[in-house]
Amino acid sequence: MASSTHPPPPPPASSSLSPPEVPMALHAHNRDKLLRALRDRLAAASRPLRGLVLLQGGEEKTRYCTDHAELFRQESYFAYLFGDIASGQSLLFAPRLPSDYAVWLGEIKPLSYFKERYKVDMVFYVDEIAHVLHDRFKESGKPLLFLLYGMNTDSNNFSKPAGFEGIENFETDLTILHPILTECRIFKSEMELALIQYANDVSSEAHVEVMRRTKAGMKEYQLESIFLHHIYMYGGCRHCSYTCICATGENSAVLHYGHAAAPNDRTLKDGDMALFDMGAEYNFYGSDITCSFPVNGKFTKDQLIVYNAVLKAHNAVISSMRPGVSWIDMHKLAEETILESLKKEGLILGDVDEMMAARLGAVFMPHGLGHFLGIDTHDPGGYAKGMERPKEPGLSALRTVRELQEGMVITVEPGCYFIDALLGPAMQDSVTSKFFNLKEVERHKNFGGVRIESDVYVTADGCKNLTKCPREPWEIEAVMAGAPWPGCGSINKATANGIF
Amino acid sequence: MASSTHPPPPPPASSSLSPPEVPMALHAHNRDKLLRALRDRLAAASRPLRGLVLLQGGEEKTRYCTDHAELFRQESYFAYLFGDIASGQSLLFAPRLPSDYAVWLGEIKPLSYFKERYKVDMVFYVDEIAHVLHDRFKESGKPLLFLLYGMNTDSNNFSKPAGFEGIENFETDLTILHPILTECRIFKSEMELALIQYANDVSSEAHVEVMRRTKAGMKEYQLESIFLHHIYMYGGCRHCSYTCICATGENSAVLHYGHAAAPNDRTLKDGDMALFDMGAEYNFYGSDITCSFPVNGKFTKDQLIVYNAVLKAHNAVISSMRPGVSWIDMHKLAEETILESLKKEGLILGDVDEMMAARLGAVFMPHGLGHFLGIDTHDPGGYAKGMERPKEPGLSALRTVRELQEGMVITVEPGCYFIDALLGPAMQDSVTSKFFNLKEVERHKNFGGVRIESDVYVTADGCKNLTKCPREPWEIEAVMAGAPWPGCGSINKATANGIF
Repeated sequence: MASSTHPPPPPPASSSLSPPEVPMALHAHNRDKLLRALRDRLAAASRPLRGLVLLQGGEEKTRYCTDHAELFRQESYFAYLFGDIASGQSLLFAPRLPSDYAVWLGEIKPLSYFKERYKVDMVFYVDEIAHVLHDRFKESGKPLLFLLYGMNTDSNNFSKPAGFEGIENFETDLTILHPILTECRIFKSEMELALIQYANDVSSEAHVEVMRRTKAGMKEYQLESIFLHHIYMYGGCRHCSYTCICATGENSAVLHYGHAAAPNDRTLKDGDMALFDMGAEYNFYGSDITCSFPVNGKFTKDQLIVYNAVLKAHNAVISSMRPGVSWIDMHKLAEETILESLKKEGLILGDVDEMMAARLGAVFMPHGLGHFLGIDTHDPGGYAKGMERPKEPGLSALRTVRELQEGMVITVEPGCYFIDALLGPAMQDSVTSKFFNLKEVERHKNFGGVRIESDVYVTADGCKNLTKCPREPWEIEAVMAGAPWPGCGSINKATANGIF
Repeated sequence: MASSTHPPPPPPASSSLSPPEVPMALHAHNRDKLLRALRDRLAAASRPLRGLVLLQGGEEKTRYCTDHAELFRQESYFAYLFGDIASGQSLLFAPRLPSDYAVWLGEIKPLSYFKERYKVDMVFYVDEIAHVLHDRFKESGKPLLFLLYGMNTDSNNFSKPAGFEGIENFETDLTILHPILTECRIFKSEMELALIQYANDVSSEAHVEVMRRTKAGMKEYQLESIFLHHIYMYGGCRHCSYTCICATGENSAVLHYGHAAAPNDRTLKDGDMALFDMGAEYNFYGSDITCSFPVNGKFTKDQLIVYNAVLKAHNAVISSMRPGVSWIDMHKLAEETILESLKKEGLILGDVDEMMAARLGAVFMPHGLGHFLGIDTHDPGGYAKGMERPKEPGLSALRTVRELQEGMVITVEPGCYFIDALLGPAMQDSVTSKFFNLKEVERHKNFGGVRIESDVYVTADGCKNLTKCPREPWEIEAVMAGAPWPGCGSINKATANGIF
């Protein structure tokens, strides 16, 4: 029968998801949590229970000297407590907008609107801040303000403490707030977890959509576009957690591919591996997911070797995660699992313990195993005061060295890459050269790499994987051929490729 | 016949466009143009023909204190001359990248790569800049550097002059370069025009796609997502010229709707007007296009009245544009055309000349008629030294007051809005109150507004509209019902809505 008279059935609706309402109780809960932690800390130091927490919201940026406004995204600590607007404790200070705002940017809302919207006790204008704070706290002497100042251990940048005209008439404390608030952010409430789960659901579905529509001849950025469209169109996600990494072929060995100097612009070839690291953000809470799969929908034997090594590491880590486990140990478990697989397949030779001692794992996986995830993709708190960053290759890239605790959300993202800039020196090195089967490694020169990344919540006695992508090679091949995937329907590949 | 056995034919391929190659000759041409202008200026001032133009490229930004990297976009003046990398004249200074760049961000390219890629004479590292410049120009005394410093008349921000360690050993000139380079950017070369035309082609097609898929019940942001997907998937456009304005119903009276505090999140209703202001950017060159249309695909009588008033103004201006014409006169022509239409339809009463003298036009169209377009959406140069911004309402919002000249690309974007914050005071005002037919204006209270925006190139004896969207009401209704549109195929509306 000719396909034109009996065409395949139309694809199913593309999503069963819809953007959830966000309860303001989420932020109220976060504020309570901070206040309790702050009171405990002051009490423990025998300090009086007085003072105000004052955080300043982010600012809209323009591009260089122009009036091109970048899409505003609230500062993360501020978003944690409010979602949107500038405040201290349960007082909110909103900007007083000029009258022509109503013409260019929309209705000017009364203060009562913000009080209701953000569930705070009182709302004033920003220009009233010094006056209001003084009036309310004058009986207790010079009012004390806790301001946010501290280093982000991923960027080494410092947060900018709140400021306003007249702040010199207040006592300020720059030391206590940052560590306490950062610690609060590490442990996710149920409401926060629900948002991270939603971002994962939408992103998992979008990854499946991308897999199904991938084919040789497309540009990498077209897959990025399909992902972005899916999360926004069906998921209501205007922001991504980070710039999409859509790497194929040898580009998959470039860990942070996709930036402006490497803008996902390669043409996909039959026989390539794809490594797509993409995550949606919903109401500030993010996801961070990597899928690796063959562009043509069928793994080769070589691709299976590397893929299975990484999958085994991914699964071994998730099986071992529970409160009390050291993240350094999890990193080493991933390295060891990958090295054992590579040895079994003849790519490397020798004793795995010796390889571990020589830090050979870092040649194949130079990045850390994972990082906290929340309002920031690299959520803060990986190194509290006194925790030292390891010096050894690979381990030095870890974004945290903590023991796992219930309530953490952390990515598990082992990878195995063939990176010239690392393999070259290691194959020359007097200690590590002996481990390489030169012929085999040479054959993988342009392989690129594989990464498998899931977002994992640590429970009281184990963990829960929030990411729902096909992971087993047979699952990936089936889904790419049109088989259903939970929540993502099924699709006729020929039709799908016609309509993206 | 049941639709399941004889479904409608699948929609045609969604685009006949593909991203063009960008010749580096474009930037070489821009550099030549600048050098000629600079030599002319120095000669006219009897100054010696010596010195170097030194521009500094943009910098990647991180979000607040985190390591979240914003997607880099080159600074516009720099992009004009190079597309990508830091330089003076035909010397390019590239950053010396650390060795782990190869692991995280990609291959470290040799200097010879940049020389070939950007068609420059010499390439050095940024850290060699003081040394190289001194060595090359030592025979002529203290070398002279022309640095970029001047105000952007849309943002009132100043460009940041290039800097490097050791610049104190050079003579610098901060005054001459900015006005000359800005003047160069106003007049587009054929190669620049080709890119602006391509951005217009892709965006026009995407606007048609959005029109065809619009229906009541959708969210505004879903139409934004369809636009973004179309320009990236088929057009290779990763950036928009500006944040999409997807306003429906009364939101269409908010001129810069779509920002983070008004994020295109309303649900479309049957009977609404839509005002979608969206434009793709390709290789730095942008487009800026607004389409207004009824959400349900059929204009009501009231919608036709306002739409036709604006369309008549749009067409009257484009018919009158040619070198020598004053942009202020074009703005007034648009106002007058709109006021005459509103008078004819009984919304306002009295003498149009009197209305013009009372600046009534600015109540219905508070923004300027249009602005230069190029590498920036609001391309610079609107006010050269000595040109004064008008004080009168409406005219004061003009981004340029120049006479048109061949080679300019300028937007033509008349609009007519019912904005409470402007109508209220005007209807109370002792001079303007008499012009309003209160009952009629009251009836339009929640109408929102209409804007029609095209990008127009000024030729030797007239102009050329680069934008290719349906504009006549009957064209819009036909395209929304599935009729073909040049370059955009035809579509079965029912099918289209099923597959977006």
